[in-house]
Amino acid sequence: MVEQSPVVEPVEATPFGTRLAAAMDTFGPLCVGIDPHPSLLAAWGLPDDVMGLREFSLGVVAALGGHVAALKPQAAFYERHGSAGIAVLEETLAAARRVGTLTIVDAKRGDIGSTMTGYAEAYLRDGSPLAGDALTVSPYLGFGSLRPAIDLALETGRGLFVLCLTSNPEGASVQHAHPSGSCDSLTLAQDDVPPASFCAERSGVAEPRTVAAAIAVQATAINEGADPLGSIGLVVGATVGEAATNTGTNLVEVNGPLLAPGVGAQGAGPVELAQVFGPARRNVLASSSRAVLAAGPSLTALRAAAQQAAIEARTALR
Amino acid sequence: MVEQSPVVEPVEATPFGTRLAAAMDTFGPLCVGIDPHPSLLAAWGLPDDVMGLREFSLGVVAALGGHVAALKPQAAFYERHGSAGIAVLEETLAAARRVGTLTIVDAKRGDIGSTMTGYAEAYLRDGSPLAGDALTVSPYLGFGSLRPAIDLALETGRGLFVLCLTSNPEGASVQHAHPSGSCDSLTLAQDDVPPASFCAERSGVAEPRTVAAAIAVQATAINEGADPLGSIGLVVGATVGEAATNTGTNLVEVNGPLLAPGVGAQGAGPVELAQVFGPARRNVLASSSRAVLAAGPSLTALRAAAQQAAIEARTALR
Repeated sequence: MVEQSPVVEPVEATPFGTRLAAAMDTFGPLCVGIDPHPSLLAAWGLPDDVMGLREFSLGVVAALGGHVAALKPQAAFYERHGSAGIAVLEETLAAARRVGTLTIVDAKRGDIGSTMTGYAEAYLRDGSPLAGDALTVSPYLGFGSLRPAIDLALETGRGLFVLCLTSNPEGASVQHAHPSGSCDSLTLAQDDVPPASFCAERSGVAEPRTVAAAIAVQATAINEGADPLGSIGLVVGATVGEAATNTGTNLVEVNGPLLAPGVGAQGAGPVELAQVFGPARRNVLASSSRAVLAAGPSLTALRAAAQQAAIEARTALR
Repeated sequence: MVEQSPVVEPVEATPFGTRLAAAMDTFGPLCVGIDPHPSLLAAWGLPDDVMGLREFSLGVVAALGGHVAALKPQAAFYERHGSAGIAVLEETLAAARRVGTLTIVDAKRGDIGSTMTGYAEAYLRDGSPLAGDALTVSPYLGFGSLRPAIDLALETGRGLFVLCLTSNPEGASVQHAHPSGSCDSLTLAQDDVPPASFCAERSGVAEPRTVAAAIAVQATAINEGADPLGSIGLVVGATVGEAATNTGTNLVEVNGPLLAPGVGAQGAGPVELAQVFGPARRNVLASSSRAVLAAGPSLTALRAAAQQAAIEARTALR
């Protein structure tokens, strides 16, 4: 008999949605943004340079790693310091990985074709120094243009958060716009079956009325059947108020995580959250940055602020 | 008398639009993209690693620096290699700066508030290691959200290219969408006077019919009066065909540079270019990447390919 080499089975990556749902159950539905803004560095008594950036970032991971559902470093504040700043981002991601805390790289990338593949490989490929557990992406070039990132995320057990409906006043000019009449004007990602609600002309039910609604529909198609939660999430401001309803953005069906800035004390309370998210409140990952970070640099105070924010988020989203 | 320190007058930065117009006059309306895609590295006999990335990028600058209107490194292909790749991007930008060739960092950044300021400071601030002469940006969060980058670009003599109307099929789902009815749904950047065509209800003339048209209108407002060319450009695919007309995107009035992939042999010829750009053809900066880069690694061949592409672009855009 010919001796056979042992077959190495590929490790089946646990989907990001599954991992995030478990972390949210354990720690509460809170993601702490790591935003090393110059004013926060100053408040912590740190210089606005690479050393300050590093001390701040590793301080946040030391305080909150193993204590929150996810950490979300904001790429812009690392890019401000050039390649040396990006090296600190890599170190920050590695530190969070070591303690098993999920990371969302908030970089809002978006491009087409092989360039989008380049971004996907930077942030979603096993072994890449900039890979976190998920990446925020921007769909101005169309949801379908994100396909290389969607594919790689699903393959490697990572996730995406696609910008959908935001609360900044300028966002409405794009996100509330109405797609051109025909069903064909909305490009579904390859191989995705349009959900029943996709095309009025074909199904008789409402087609997405707005850009934001269409983004949600396309994420819904990818997350269909995932249990407990799909891996293609959306960014939806908790304080968008009536905009979710008015734009026809169906968040209940998305079945993916909804990354939401503005939950809690200074933003949306239980009534507002019910208005925006309805029963999808259970899928909301509240994002908080400065409210928590302002408690530093004391690690104890940071941890207490994050735990308080997680409790408030869980209560508000109940 | 008290001896006075000499007053150092701030150097009034020459606007990006002025510098680009001069470079286009001298070298022809061609921007060469530096896209160190794995397949191009392989074609040049280089490994897909940081050393290969560096040799490729500095090779392009050595061949084309001082010979083309602009070079456009594609951030994604540097981010693929992590912080060490970003250090090569910095080195590439510095090499182009030394020979006086304009650089457009193609990074399609976009965010809001202080985070957008962070990106602006990374790519548009004097002394930042990642600063080029211009940056591509993405307006899914609304044109107005780009304000910190617009302000810093104008202050430092740099420019922006805002994604507007692209030729990838998925782009239409966002870019061709119709803004909500009222004039108020379009947020003009602070302090900008809406041009006469902005609001149907107020002026009686057509308001922007689509997201792309509204982006163009807002760039128009900022570039008004700039001579010979404003500094807030747009990205418009040369092969969008009837989409420019059908979306009501008025490129003639923009008075800023129009960065256009798809000009020439494999894309849009003179007839198509006239259809898309009309008299704004004179403001088009044709972007070419692989068609030129495939001629490498021979510096002589690269230079010849770029000069040929510049002649073709000038002819096609006449």
